Amino acid sequence: MSDKVHIFDTTLRDGEQVPGCQLNTKEKIEVAKALEELGVDIIEAGFPISSPGDFTSIIEISKAVSEPVICALTRAKKEDIDCAVESLKHAKRKRIHTGIGASDMHIQYKFNTSREDVLERGVWAVKYAKQFVEDIEFYAEDAGRADLPFLAQMIEEVIAAGATVVNIPDTTGYCLPWDYGAKIKYLKENVKNIDKAIISVHCHNDLGLATANSIAGVINGARQIECTINGIGERAGNTSLEEVVMIMKSHKELELLNRINTPRIYPTSRLVSRLMRMRVQPNKAIVGDNAFAHSSGIHQDGFLKHRETYEVIDPHDVGVADSSIVLTARSGRAALKHRLENLGYFVSKEDIDEIYPDYLIMADELKVIQDEHLTVLFQKLETKREQATVKTNS
Amino acid sequence: MSDKVHIFDTTLRDGEQVPGCQLNTKEKIEVAKALEELGVDIIEAGFPISSPGDFTSIIEISKAVSEPVICALTRAKKEDIDCAVESLKHAKRKRIHTGIGASDMHIQYKFNTSREDVLERGVWAVKYAKQFVEDIEFYAEDAGRADLPFLAQMIEEVIAAGATVVNIPDTTGYCLPWDYGAKIKYLKENVKNIDKAIISVHCHNDLGLATANSIAGVINGARQIECTINGIGERAGNTSLEEVVMIMKSHKELELLNRINTPRIYPTSRLVSRLMRMRVQPNKAIVGDNAFAHSSGIHQDGFLKHRETYEVIDPHDVGVADSSIVLTARSGRAALKHRLENLGYFVSKEDIDEIYPDYLIMADELKVIQDEHLTVLFQKLETKREQATVKTNS
Repeated sequence: MSDKVHIFDTTLRDGEQVPGCQLNTKEKIEVAKALEELGVDIIEAGFPISSPGDFTSIIEISKAVSEPVICALTRAKKEDIDCAVESLKHAKRKRIHTGIGASDMHIQYKFNTSREDVLERGVWAVKYAKQFVEDIEFYAEDAGRADLPFLAQMIEEVIAAGATVVNIPDTTGYCLPWDYGAKIKYLKENVKNIDKAIISVHCHNDLGLATANSIAGVINGARQIECTINGIGERAGNTSLEEVVMIMKSHKELELLNRINTPRIYPTSRLVSRLMRMRVQPNKAIVGDNAFAHSSGIHQDGFLKHRETYEVIDPHDVGVADSSIVLTARSGRAALKHRLENLGYFVSKEDIDEIYPDYLIMADELKVIQDEHLTVLFQKLETKREQATVKTNS
Repeated sequence: MSDKVHIFDTTLRDGEQVPGCQLNTKEKIEVAKALEELGVDIIEAGFPISSPGDFTSIIEISKAVSEPVICALTRAKKEDIDCAVESLKHAKRKRIHTGIGASDMHIQYKFNTSREDVLERGVWAVKYAKQFVEDIEFYAEDAGRADLPFLAQMIEEVIAAGATVVNIPDTTGYCLPWDYGAKIKYLKENVKNIDKAIISVHCHNDLGLATANSIAGVINGARQIECTINGIGERAGNTSLEEVVMIMKSHKELELLNRINTPRIYPTSRLVSRLMRMRVQPNKAIVGDNAFAHSSGIHQDGFLKHRETYEVIDPHDVGVADSSIVLTARSGRAALKHRLENLGYFVSKEDIDEIYPDYLIMADELKVIQDEHLTVLFQKLETKREQATVKTNS
């Protein structure tokens, strides 16, 4: 089995559906580009049948991003799949993510039907989607509470029908890590065509266990983790991308690799927090304001003697800027770019060239440039960009 | 082995030392009383040698609270222990929490000494403290990275010296759940006097695993969890009390009990967040604003058909108020008290009687009372209380 774990980011789908987090198409493209730079393998870009805005965004993200696979969510319905196929037409690499409930709770109360019927509908959806797109992921909703032999049967049949990835979601965030890991192991050992597909884990954080469950999953044979930046998502959110990635990086003995460019973690976290208006609490692992702050006397003393007495991750590895870098009129373009990105403002080399003269005037006047001054500077740039667009279009 | 897990709350010690979270004595008493009402078994009230403020607060908390054990932290030093003994003199039930580094990283870089020396100093501290206080907890700092046979030796010797509780902290938040669980199991199986003490877990959340590690600990034989409200604490914080408690409550098959009065969780979370100025992110498990919010169409549909399709915890179990309760001039005292407590304002029956006429005038004028109006109402009450205190004292 390969040691490569695919990172499937669903910030723009499972994250974006949270009240107050909605993004317009321009903002979604900005996030998608940041995710591409971060190095995610798959971007779940939306649920196209759900709204015209989601549909348009998938079209535009498909045009704007070339490296990651672009994925669209559907239910096991013809109109959903047709819509997803259409939304993905410009994607260089594409995936359809379809599925149906797998637990008796969902089968009985949500679908008001039988196991046989959901099985048939699931297999049908995979076969139907497969006519248009090669890469088909199947989700067995509420797999965390599903009957295990039935889940295994469902997975075997959808793989036979053409699914390339099988997603085993803990939809309610109920599982304990060893139980969730055991489910993945069971599928690995009891689904006879399992090696023809990648097992994916999709965990929710209702009991604070999404990260541990995802890691339990990959230790037991899953090779894709579905996650979001800052762990945003429905209710208590999804697995935090930054946590699972840094666990794999810190724990080399797991022999699990991913292609995330970790110094992009912090800037991407800031960008998502800013655009989605979802604050990150100071004590959030990896990306919280205090994640690398040492306050107590005992800790500071130990820390100053030897960094690793109290810290297992080097802040630079996740792109957290040295707070000791003070921005003045003597600071260069690189320092300015770095600080802007740490506020979630993504800027190109050209943007910096554009902004730098204004920056110098500001720095001469104010001596030390604070975060709020950088916000003003960035907004000036945005205004210039918009005026340029209007000119081009008129 | 008993199925009772002791809940050791360190919000006022490990939580309070975070920059910006400092409380004055009055506020600490307010939190301590709320923790007593919540039903925690032990309140770690401070590190008395660290400041006169901490010392005074432990004295005052000891007077204000009678049910939980009051615990004071020390290093393995005479002056620390003497100070702790003095600070606990009014406590009905008291504990001293002393200890020293156990990992070679800490022994070498922080203490610049040998294993033999830290062992001797640890044993000495327990014996010295035991002369004054019966209940002695020993922490083996950075146990998560310590050599396991050496850790076992240390634990055995401190229990022989009189330790009643042995704390195995994952100080840097580095351990994976199965590794941390295995360490606890190893101690349980290899320390021959282990049944004379309670094993305690103290985990940090640097990799997002504090909750999973704590649960792994109790599954493997620990019977005390050290935790904080909202998971506050150094860097990425400590284990969240609300998460471990609700895991034990939801997963009956673990057969682990605790005496937390879960409907007090949410009001206590609000109180701590308000007084410590530490915001809770919307997607925080159990206590975040969105923890019980269903937004996507698919989820809402399933949820409306049957609550348990998407929710494993009943919000009422953790004291989250029904958002459908609208406060008007027709609302009674109980509704008013409930909503105030959900904002972190703890009020007695007498307070409500005092405030209710003002509330009615406000409600008649404004028709619907919002959270900001309740804040104004509470501040009025605070002012009255302060004026009353001044009168009494003068």
